[in-house]
Parts: sequence; C-alpha cells; structure tokens
Amino acid sequence: MDNIQNDYQSALHVNDGIPQPAQVNPYLKKKPLKRAPQLTTLEYVDGIRAHDRTVLSKAITLIESSLPEHYAQAQEIINACIPFSGKSVRIGITGVPGAGKSTFIECFGNHLIASGHRIAVLAVDPSSEISKGSILGDKTRMETLSVQPHAFIRPSPSAGSLGGVARKTRESIILCEAAGFDTILVETVGVGQSETAVHSMVDFFLLLTIAGAGDELQGIKRGIMEMANAIVVNKADGENRHRAELTRRQLANALQLFPNHNQTEWKTPVLTASALDGSNIPEIWGMISSYISRMKGNGSFGQRRIRQSEECLKSYIEERLFNLFYSNPDVREDLEPLRRQMLEQKLSAYTAGGLLIDKYIQSLKH
Amino acid sequence: MDNIQNDYQSALHVNDGIPQPAQVNPYLKKKPLKRAPQLTTLEYVDGIRAHDRTVLSKAITLIESSLPEHYAQAQEIINACIPFSGKSVRIGITGVPGAGKSTFIECFGNHLIASGHRIAVLAVDPSSEISKGSILGDKTRMETLSVQPHAFIRPSPSAGSLGGVARKTRESIILCEAAGFDTILVETVGVGQSETAVHSMVDFFLLLTIAGAGDELQGIKRGIMEMANAIVVNKADGENRHRAELTRRQLANALQLFPNHNQTEWKTPVLTASALDGSNIPEIWGMISSYISRMKGNGSFGQRRIRQSEECLKSYIEERLFNLFYSNPDVREDLEPLRRQMLEQKLSAYTAGGLLIDKYIQSLKH
Repeated sequence: MDNIQNDYQSALHVNDGIPQPAQVNPYLKKKPLKRAPQLTTLEYVDGIRAHDRTVLSKAITLIESSLPEHYAQAQEIINACIPFSGKSVRIGITGVPGAGKSTFIECFGNHLIASGHRIAVLAVDPSSEISKGSILGDKTRMETLSVQPHAFIRPSPSAGSLGGVARKTRESIILCEAAGFDTILVETVGVGQSETAVHSMVDFFLLLTIAGAGDELQGIKRGIMEMANAIVVNKADGENRHRAELTRRQLANALQLFPNHNQTEWKTPVLTASALDGSNIPEIWGMISSYISRMKGNGSFGQRRIRQSEECLKSYIEERLFNLFYSNPDVREDLEPLRRQMLEQKLSAYTAGGLLIDKYIQSLKH
Repeated sequence: MDNIQNDYQSALHVNDGIPQPAQVNPYLKKKPLKRAPQLTTLEYVDGIRAHDRTVLSKAITLIESSLPEHYAQAQEIINACIPFSGKSVRIGITGVPGAGKSTFIECFGNHLIASGHRIAVLAVDPSSEISKGSILGDKTRMETLSVQPHAFIRPSPSAGSLGGVARKTRESIILCEAAGFDTILVETVGVGQSETAVHSMVDFFLLLTIAGAGDELQGIKRGIMEMANAIVVNKADGENRHRAELTRRQLANALQLFPNHNQTEWKTPVLTASALDGSNIPEIWGMISSYISRMKGNGSFGQRRIRQSEECLKSYIEERLFNLFYSNPDVREDLEPLRRQMLEQKLSAYTAGGLLIDKYIQSLKH
C-alpha cells in the first residue's frame, strides 16, 4: 500500500509543474492535496486481494460513507469481492457491559494468530454515535492485538439505524474475507436488538458473562441465551475462580430447564475462562472448531449461510418498502388523522391501514 | 333471534304465492330458500347490541368469509361496533397439547358466569385446517359451558395464514364486546407463532402447563414464558397434586433466573390448579383481577391497548406492502434469478434487493 500511495503522491507532485506564485486563497490549491487520493475500483479490489490492510480500511470507509458516489463504488467493490468471500468462520461475541469483551477478544485473537490464523475484528453498536464508540472505539484496549500484522480491527460504523449499521458490517465481512482473513469476530453489546442482527450474520454466537452477586443472569435477556451457541463465564481468575464456577453451574442448570430449540444436535456448553491468565482460551477455540466441523459435516453450516442470505434479502426489501411507504407525502398527510381516529375507537386498525394503502397505490400511479 | 329467523322464513313463505307447477329443474326455485336469509348491516349491529348470540355468530361468519361482498359488509359492521367495544377484559390462554386447556376454560368460564360475568371464548389456531379443529372444534368438550346463556363459544377460523386468522379473531373480539361480553378468553395452542399473535390482542396472557417427568419445561418455548403474565400448573388433583407442586416450584425458580424484563411492576406468579375439582380457580380469577386493576391504576392497561392498536396497524400495513410486492408480475419474473445469483455468490443480497425494488417502482408507474 505504501507503494501505491507514494505513486499517487509523486504523480500529483509532478502535476504541480513549475512553481507558481501564491494565490489569493492558498487553500484553493492545497485542498485537493489534503484529500486521500482516490483509488479505482480495480485498485481497491486488487489491494484487498493482496491482503493490503490500508486499502481494506479505505474500502470500508467507502462502505460507511453516505455520499452517493461512494455508495456506487462501494457496491462495485463488494460485488467484485463476493466471489472470494464466504470462506471464513464468522463468530459473534456478545456480553453485558463489564463482561470483558475487549480483553477476551484480544486474548482469543492473539491465540488464533499464534495458531496461524488471520483474524478481523468488526463491531455492531448502533448506539455508538451517542456513547462515542463504546466498543472497539478505544483501540488501546486491544493494543497487543492491533499491532499484529495478521489482525485487522475496525470499530463499529457510528452512524445510522441498526439496519444500516448491520448492513455495513455485513458488507465489511465480505471485504475482510476477500482480504484473506479466515476468522471474523463480530463484537456487539449485550443489550437491545443488535444481537439479533449479529446472530443473523455469524456461524457461531458466543455469549460472554461474569460471576455476579447471585443475580448475574438478570442482565441477560432470555432471547440472547436462546441464540447463544456457547456461554463463557469470563474473569474466572484469582479469587473470582470459585464464583465463576458457581455461575457456570447455575447457567448450565438453567439451560437444562430451557433448552435451545433451534439446535437439535448441539447442547450449548457453558465454560469458564480467563482472558487475564489465558485459561480455557484454547479450549474455547477447540469447542468452536468442533461445532463448525460438525455443522459442515451434516450440511447445517451451508444451510445456515443460505438462510442468512435469504433473511438478509427479505429484511432489506422490507426496510426499503417501509421507507418508501412512510416517506410518501400522501401517506404522511393521512397517517396521523387516521391513527387518531383508530385510537379514538372510530375506525378499526384494518380499515385505517386499508385506506392508507389505497392512498399509497394511487399516489404511485401519478 | 328465533323470532327474527321465523319472521324471515314466513316472509319468504308468503312470497311463494299460489303454488306453481313443478319446474324442469326443481333446484332452481328451492335453492334460494336453502341460503340463510341476509341481514342488513343495521340489523346485524342492532342484533349484536341486543346481545343476540345468533346474530353475533352470523356476523362472525361474515368476517370469516372470503367473498368480497361479505368483506365489505363485515367492515361496515365492525366499524359500527367499534365505539361499543374495548370494555372487556381480554385474556389469552395457551398451553402445550395435553395441558387441559378446554377443561380449564370450561371450569374457569363457569366460575366467571356464576360470578355474574358474560364470557366469550374465541380461538387462534392457524393449523386447524390441517388438524381439523384441534381447539374448540369439538364443542362437546365444553358441554356445560356451551349451554350457558351467558357464554359464547366460537372455534378458530380454519382458513388462511396466521395473519388472516389473527385478524379475524381481533375483529371477532370487537363484535363480542359490542354484544356485551365483559370477559373474552382467547385460546391458542402452545406451539409456533400463534402465541405472539394472541399476546398482541389480550390484556393478560396465561400459560397453562402440567407436571411431567422432570422435563416438563422442554415443551415450553422460552419466548412464551417471557410473554406469560402468569403460569398455571393444571391437573393438580389426586395423586398428581404433589408432582404439580414440584413443577410449580421448579417454574418459580426458573422465573427467578429469567425475570420478565417486559414487566416492571408484576412478578409472574406460578400457581397450581385443578379444573377437575375446581381448586384455585377463584384464586386465578382474583389474581387476574388484581393485575387488571393495578394496570388500570397506573395507566399501563390503556397504554398496552394503544400499543397493540398501533402494532396491529403497522403489521397490517407491512403485510399488505409485502403482498403487493411479491405478487407483482415484474418482481416475480426477476426474484428467482436474482436469488440464485445471490446464493451462488455473484451478487450481494443488498444489490439483489435494490434491483428488485427498482423494478417494482418502475412497474407501478406504468
């Protein structure tokens, strides 16, 4: 990448020609030089395929941009990368704040790299615009991982709806896979709807928790437990080891009462681990590997991926259809009055809905 | 109602006039007599408001009909009844097959009627077309309740999607309330998505279960537990009493581990009961009443109803928008090829979705 950048810079320098007198507005000339040089789609794709992390990073910035010209080029890059994507193991990691997600990912990631893997760490946190990058934003929290040449760390896109953030992360996964990363870790916060989004884009979903004061499960939504393919009680080190083991047993019991109906051949394991002393980290990777090979063996791995693609297509179409409907001026005009009539018990919800749909169809025909 | 029907029949009889010679096709004349006499919308609404169960029943048949002319009249009746609706307590009842839902509803319903209530029993079972009316279909299972003048029992509409069945039940609730029923029981089977539909139309959601061989919770989806405002372990009678009490305690423990995050002021109670000897049946009604008055006291009752109306409007609009999209001939032409390209990793899901939306918008403009 350094070479490409140098080429661009010297090309621009050559274009300066003979030194010119100072202009009235000196920024007029300097401004273009300050912008990062634009790459062509081919340069992006070649750079990604050549494992160039700087080009990958720039391409993801393009995906995250809200400018229409960036959007078009991002789509070109994604569609050019798609044939080279899909070969990684995608692992979702969630957990309540304080569960030690970053430290766990750093320790886990370093272990994977030591075993010869190339890992990319992405994040989904639609709240990060408000919380100013609560996850992965502070790269110093992963300082030993971020300096590894075989690691790529990217914070959550900070703008937009959950749907938008999820989309950007999905598209980033494609580029990371095309850039040769064989293990993608997608981090998310353990509250709200973002877990469902992450669950729908990964092969394995890991729930991270810690020992608490007896009510440690209070913070975990049951729906998230149901999505988890494994639960890890983190910070099982020092004096905390015993309490972590107790929590592990409690969770295992609870899972017996509420088995995961979505998994027929896999009983959600509950493990303790410590990102501090590294205990059980290799075992967790072993457990994930055995899950993946079992699922590949019986065809569920591919089926899950197909289901995820179809779900993604469906929910994207839904989102677009709603946006078109609710942003339609004729619909907007009638929505509030009809809603009020419905709430005042003058109209059934179905009648109100029917009238709005009729209005929408009419307005599209003009 | 018998009077109205007699009036109609005699009116038709009078219209026969002087006896005519037999026709070539004898059915030509007799056929109209075999059809139920049509009522005007006003007659329907008046009959419903006069607590006439036969007119109510006919109006619900109109709601369930798939004929367009029936649809139009049904909407008129519903919108005329809406101002008189909303005053009942709506209770959803679910449970795994074998939990004794019908016996429980019969016992519970008889208790309510003895306390001066008028109760309507409806059902949501989208599978009933296949299972031939597995719930409420066999009225003999509720023979002591069905003969009560203050009870109205209606099996699940047997045709259509879950959305369709749920809609028909919602509309039936409006008519039942306009007909003076102050307590509506909506039964559903304890499997699949119909619980969510029923939960979205009731004020209180009761989960019925029984003691089993240690794995009694296996059959209950965690999502349903999360929706329940109370859990009743039924068939707590005779030799079974002890096991029922054990199951009750297990469930209470499990709920402590997984509290219902949607309820801030209500801790889901777990009770045993017997529909056979009537034990705890009055207590269950007392518990529901205290829930309702508490929720009415702090405003949550009205808020839940408003939320349900808005959800209903939203999901109806969604359903209609999807149907319009997926039944569009231009979309249908492109959907399968684009889907295949997406699954063959030639196109991202977002690109495929975008192309389909563009095609749809174009086709609407013609």
